[in-house]
Amino acid sequence: MKIMILGGDGYLGWPTAMAFASKGHEVIAVDNYLRRNIALETSSEPLIPCPNLIERADIFQAVSNYKIKTAIADCADYLQLTNLFRDFHPDAVIHYAEQPSAPYSMIDFQTAQKTFSNNLNATFNLIWAVKEFAPECHIVKLGTMGEYGTPDIDIEEGWIDIEHNGRKDTFLYPRQAGSLYHTTKVLDTDLLWFYVRTYGLRVTDLMQGPVYGLSTAESDLDTRLLPNFHYDDIFGTVVNRFLVQAVAGVPLTVYGKGGQTRGYLNLKDTLQCVELAVDSPVKKGELRILNQFTEQFSVNHLAEKVQAVGNKMGLKVKIEAIENPRKEKEDHYYNAKHHGLMEMGLKPHYMTDEVVTKMLEEIIIRKDQIDPKKIMPRVKWNN
Amino acid sequence: MKIMILGGDGYLGWPTAMAFASKGHEVIAVDNYLRRNIALETSSEPLIPCPNLIERADIFQAVSNYKIKTAIADCADYLQLTNLFRDFHPDAVIHYAEQPSAPYSMIDFQTAQKTFSNNLNATFNLIWAVKEFAPECHIVKLGTMGEYGTPDIDIEEGWIDIEHNGRKDTFLYPRQAGSLYHTTKVLDTDLLWFYVRTYGLRVTDLMQGPVYGLSTAESDLDTRLLPNFHYDDIFGTVVNRFLVQAVAGVPLTVYGKGGQTRGYLNLKDTLQCVELAVDSPVKKGELRILNQFTEQFSVNHLAEKVQAVGNKMGLKVKIEAIENPRKEKEDHYYNAKHHGLMEMGLKPHYMTDEVVTKMLEEIIIRKDQIDPKKIMPRVKWNN
Repeated sequence: MKIMILGGDGYLGWPTAMAFASKGHEVIAVDNYLRRNIALETSSEPLIPCPNLIERADIFQAVSNYKIKTAIADCADYLQLTNLFRDFHPDAVIHYAEQPSAPYSMIDFQTAQKTFSNNLNATFNLIWAVKEFAPECHIVKLGTMGEYGTPDIDIEEGWIDIEHNGRKDTFLYPRQAGSLYHTTKVLDTDLLWFYVRTYGLRVTDLMQGPVYGLSTAESDLDTRLLPNFHYDDIFGTVVNRFLVQAVAGVPLTVYGKGGQTRGYLNLKDTLQCVELAVDSPVKKGELRILNQFTEQFSVNHLAEKVQAVGNKMGLKVKIEAIENPRKEKEDHYYNAKHHGLMEMGLKPHYMTDEVVTKMLEEIIIRKDQIDPKKIMPRVKWNN
Repeated sequence: MKIMILGGDGYLGWPTAMAFASKGHEVIAVDNYLRRNIALETSSEPLIPCPNLIERADIFQAVSNYKIKTAIADCADYLQLTNLFRDFHPDAVIHYAEQPSAPYSMIDFQTAQKTFSNNLNATFNLIWAVKEFAPECHIVKLGTMGEYGTPDIDIEEGWIDIEHNGRKDTFLYPRQAGSLYHTTKVLDTDLLWFYVRTYGLRVTDLMQGPVYGLSTAESDLDTRLLPNFHYDDIFGTVVNRFLVQAVAGVPLTVYGKGGQTRGYLNLKDTLQCVELAVDSPVKKGELRILNQFTEQFSVNHLAEKVQAVGNKMGLKVKIEAIENPRKEKEDHYYNAKHHGLMEMGLKPHYMTDEVVTKMLEEIIIRKDQIDPKKIMPRVKWNN
């Protein structure tokens, strides 16, 4: 298959590109370096220096013999995106090309505007590029579990049957997100659903939870192929931050009460899920929504897990509650369904002590490169 | 009060500006002439030639002694919008500044993109302009009943209580619109709701049905003050189109089966509703959603109503079903609540035979200016 990966230089995009190339697919990784630029702008560079996308592809080809085409292009620019479609004719597009940081989206007008414009225009342009140039193409879009927020009822997979005043109908599950970044993904879903039913597009929208880890079958081939591992307050997901804090000898910073519960998954499982989605495309006019995570934890539970494993390794890990910079419920009901991908064949890599140990070992090697100043929250939701 | 009207040159914006100025408010009408430009571009000029916004304001001042400030500015440009906020310091902003044509939004990439970009950026910029420069300001946003689509359950006013697996919560009523234009308003609502709960904005979102008519207390003062009355397939609402068809001696064109049911209202009632909303601002952090229409009709019912009145006036009105250019249910359940504005004091002007007669009389005077070529649908949803 011909697979186009938008945001192919990202934490998920790059491992995805290598995984599909290793399966023998023809892959093009497209990126505008937005995350690299924001990392520079906010002093949020990853723990491990990453070669640029073109260099990464060269290194990957040298060590694996598999080729990844690359294009430094902006999906928010319709002409640039459609030029790629005219050349490449993808069978599937995996759309990660979004500004992915919730805190960055909440700094000020400029960062909000950049997030809003990049994310919405990338999705809008992708819809039209597919409609005009590759109408059979399957769009696999990364949404987020954060679209649902923390409702006081069970979270279903994308849709909900509502019985009201004696009548029934099925609707998109109501969405209510906690940051502008997450809200752009709510808007993406609304937009995709409109165009799916109007123009008969094929779309899988994956509601993904926070991802952790840096090891994948391909990234393990050469350290220069590791995904960009962020531990800062802008791009670092909570697990990655806790792991680095444990190694750096600073307390794991729990925001507020720490009862915030989410569904998490291992980077290896992101790759599995995306592959499962691509391998079974939906029919025309179908929007398939799948909740993409493997297990639920509260932030306190996560901190305790990292602490327990860290202490066994002699790290003397402390946990410290700090004022929550975000506006969110800190103690709430959370029960999210995630049957779809399991039924499609997902074999989860759970966050066992062994997995946590291996991640800590990877970070310990790079302990000297940690800058603890990058970890504390710099962005408040109510500024 | 200081009232800023975005889209102040529009079918609703201009009568709204006059109405508030006549009540003694300080009014600024802001417009970028997007609708005028699209009308030129698509040969969809209104039945009655309209002086430009600055001329209209001058004429209005000459005949009424009330002043309306004007600004030709683009709300999708943050600098232009915030400059107005710095100068004017509004207590309330009425936001009509959206590309309002569903068919136009469905022509091709360019028209879709223009709609998407104008509507979303105008709303996004307004949110930030209020947050940064007028945090106490009440935003009165025109949404549309079309956001709800045609669900098989009762349509509530903005919110719905959902009981699910033995638990309960309240959510934004699920939205599923029938055109990109209507979908941009769904996205507006999602965006407003996020920023209302995050930054404590005050927002009233009015879900309005199709509006008809050209008479208001102020527009009746001078024919040059009439609202821009469109009867074309791009900007004409169904009632205005039927009235003009009746006068022009061409059949009233019903799209498909004609069972499409919507809630309608008289232009005079739009003015009342917006005034009621402005007169009772919501508190900080509240998103009030009101369904703004006075009575429900099917398209067939409307056609028969215009036919009956027209025939009494000797017009020999025919009705003709044509292929539906849109993708919509033509026969469906529809029961939409609209208590809120009634409870706030709305006194409806229903579509009586007398009201239809007066509208037909206004159009008969201008019969020679009708171009029947503009009425038939030029845009198909599945092109």
